[in-house]
Amino acid sequence: MEKYNFNAGPCVLPRPAVESAIEAIRNFDNTGIGILEISHRTPGWERIMKETADLWKELLNIPDNYHVLFLGGGASTQFFDVPANLLKSKAAYLETGSWAKKAIKEAKFYGEVEVVASSADKNFSYIPKGYSIPEDVDYFHITSNNTIYGTEIHEDIDSPVTLVADMSSDIMSRPVDVSKYGIIYGGAQKNVGPAGVSFVIVREDILGKTGRPIQTMVDYRTHISDSEKNRSMFNTPPVFSIFVMHETLKWLKEQGGVEAIYKLNKEKAGMLYDEIDRNKLFVGTAAKEDRSIMNVCFVMKEEYKDKEAEFLKFATERGMVGIKGHRSVGGFRASIYNACPKEAVEALIKCMQDFEAQN
Amino acid sequence: MEKYNFNAGPCVLPRPAVESAIEAIRNFDNTGIGILEISHRTPGWERIMKETADLWKELLNIPDNYHVLFLGGGASTQFFDVPANLLKSKAAYLETGSWAKKAIKEAKFYGEVEVVASSADKNFSYIPKGYSIPEDVDYFHITSNNTIYGTEIHEDIDSPVTLVADMSSDIMSRPVDVSKYGIIYGGAQKNVGPAGVSFVIVREDILGKTGRPIQTMVDYRTHISDSEKNRSMFNTPPVFSIFVMHETLKWLKEQGGVEAIYKLNKEKAGMLYDEIDRNKLFVGTAAKEDRSIMNVCFVMKEEYKDKEAEFLKFATERGMVGIKGHRSVGGFRASIYNACPKEAVEALIKCMQDFEAQN
Ligand SMILES: Cc1ncc(COP(=O)(O)O)c(C=O)c1O
Ligand SMILES: Cc1ncc(COP(=O)(O)O)c(C=O)c1O
Ligand SMILES: [Mg+2]
Ligand SMILES: [Mg+2]
Ligand SMILES: [Mg+2]
Ligand SMILES: [Mg+2]
Repeated sequence: MEKYNFNAGPCVLPRPAVESAIEAIRNFDNTGIGILEISHRTPGWERIMKETADLWKELLNIPDNYHVLFLGGGASTQFFDVPANLLKSKAAYLETGSWAKKAIKEAKFYGEVEVVASSADKNFSYIPKGYSIPEDVDYFHITSNNTIYGTEIHEDIDSPVTLVADMSSDIMSRPVDVSKYGIIYGGAQKNVGPAGVSFVIVREDILGKTGRPIQTMVDYRTHISDSEKNRSMFNTPPVFSIFVMHETLKWLKEQGGVEAIYKLNKEKAGMLYDEIDRNKLFVGTAAKEDRSIMNVCFVMKEEYKDKEAEFLKFATERGMVGIKGHRSVGGFRASIYNACPKEAVEALIKCMQDFEAQN
Repeated sequence: MEKYNFNAGPCVLPRPAVESAIEAIRNFDNTGIGILEISHRTPGWERIMKETADLWKELLNIPDNYHVLFLGGGASTQFFDVPANLLKSKAAYLETGSWAKKAIKEAKFYGEVEVVASSADKNFSYIPKGYSIPEDVDYFHITSNNTIYGTEIHEDIDSPVTLVADMSSDIMSRPVDVSKYGIIYGGAQKNVGPAGVSFVIVREDILGKTGRPIQTMVDYRTHISDSEKNRSMFNTPPVFSIFVMHETLKWLKEQGGVEAIYKLNKEKAGMLYDEIDRNKLFVGTAAKEDRSIMNVCFVMKEEYKDKEAEFLKFATERGMVGIKGHRSVGGFRASIYNACPKEAVEALIKCMQDFEAQN
């Protein structure tokens, strides 16, 4: 039976990226050695590292005064790497979910944190608005897409201070004006690759200002490096995860890039939200204006609540994978990242309609 | 042409581990979803995580009061994770090479460091002896195998304080009495898998004694976790690298485990060192009693020095890969880790003999 993968991350990857990964495991770059077994100090690999950074720059139109770093340890490691590099005395955070809360917790190791607004009052089902960003802080941190709650900040906001965004779950899903940000970071395992690597897009001039000595691996300047060969290669990088990222970005470019995928993402999300709204059984959990185009969260209406387990079973039997909602929201979550084909969304919609028909 | 992979890491992996990796990319655990695309909160994956830790425990006879953690960021991240978790006021380090020096540098962020002995005077070509370990330090740190210089501490030393070892390049190559160590750590990318994951074997009772608040991802207790499901899964782990580690350890177990591979490793290293000693062209760089059974370093004798480039070309044409020595030593280095077959060593020896015959 065909499977439709709605996992929240790690999640579905483009088929050509997966096929190239397998080929490279057998024989990387015609060396006769597989990608899992080559030295990272091989010219062919150094080329892939550079090309991967170049693909990022091209796809997101990243200005020249920014660097793109590839690091291990997941986005959770960036929760403390960011303040270690930027927080001198005080930072502002927008509290839009549990990932934002975790980021806030780590920032407190380095200085004062002002939570400028929070949507905790309604279980993070909306994006706070009308707050003002203090001007006396070192940076303002947002989580642009809240994977668990299905809310998203749809536009690049204007900030009077350095803007930092955790874009783990919506990077490359829409065009972004990178010049408005000091740092954009995230785990690769949603839109840009498998687990095992994180990305950090950083404007170089904001670094080195805290006066704090920073552990070598935590200091972004280590990974920027003066020598091109050592960019994100101060130590052994997560070679294979970066390779699959490279192939994923190549695929994205072939799809027409970020503008094209954004159009498709809006279409996919629109279809699914329309069905949620139309269908008598389901209701969306996020405020309509803040609905994420990546993570679509919905529950059963009060009067059908007892049918949730049954629908999960029904959908699973029809090949839907990973649609159980996160325990903090309940119900269902369909993660429809870039590589999730429209056919998967159609299959899920069909499933919802068939289940409605029998209830 | 057959290739013989002597890369220092990432490096050759067992063929069955590579084949399983490819199968799992196509279809993991009969889920119909590939290993790069499954959620790490899938029962099949939770089983692999547990089995991987269990394989470590079984293969190294790890006592019950130890945990095995799998983390991102490479061994270089452990250079600061270790002191962050253990260093209260002072630590002692043995300086046996550039990795040891890098570890020392990071420890200084957390307290005083006493370098008890160093072999820097002879370009790290031997292991210092006859030093005494101070009793007023929080731990004593060694690099058991010096990948770059081809020297190795062949026995588990007795330490009056917590012993910490970077075993990046000799883990699982010989039996180790884990109970003599507080922490054993390293990058996986030599003997236990591909790049992208590190291992930390840690005795639980030594943690939480510094009084220092530790960032969540740096604190080993986060990854030990009270809940079995979150062991090394506080955040998204480097799934695929851990999977290949699992397959590599399964293979090692099938070979008869660490005792059996140790026998083979000694045999392989013995053959190669014998040839180096016998061959009129070559000479080993490491002190004989400290020769590593993993990284075999050799150069051309003074009178044949001008033939190094020629031999490299000669060997490369015969399929040898990765035998160029590290720039800090020069000449040649053959890394003959667990998964390097005896045939590869034989092929290299043949190459050395053929080159001698023509010179
Ligand atoms: C928005 C966001 N930030 C951070 C994380 C944590 O990422 P990692 O597991 O790579 O540490 C996630 C994971 O799902 C996420 O969705
Ligand atoms: C002994 C030793 N320690 C540490 C490292 C650094 O490992 P990583 O590149 O994973 O940070 C290496 C890498 O070769 C090594 O050989
Ligand atoms: Mg969230
Ligand atoms: Mg409805
Ligand atoms: Mg060394
Ligand atoms: Mg000789």
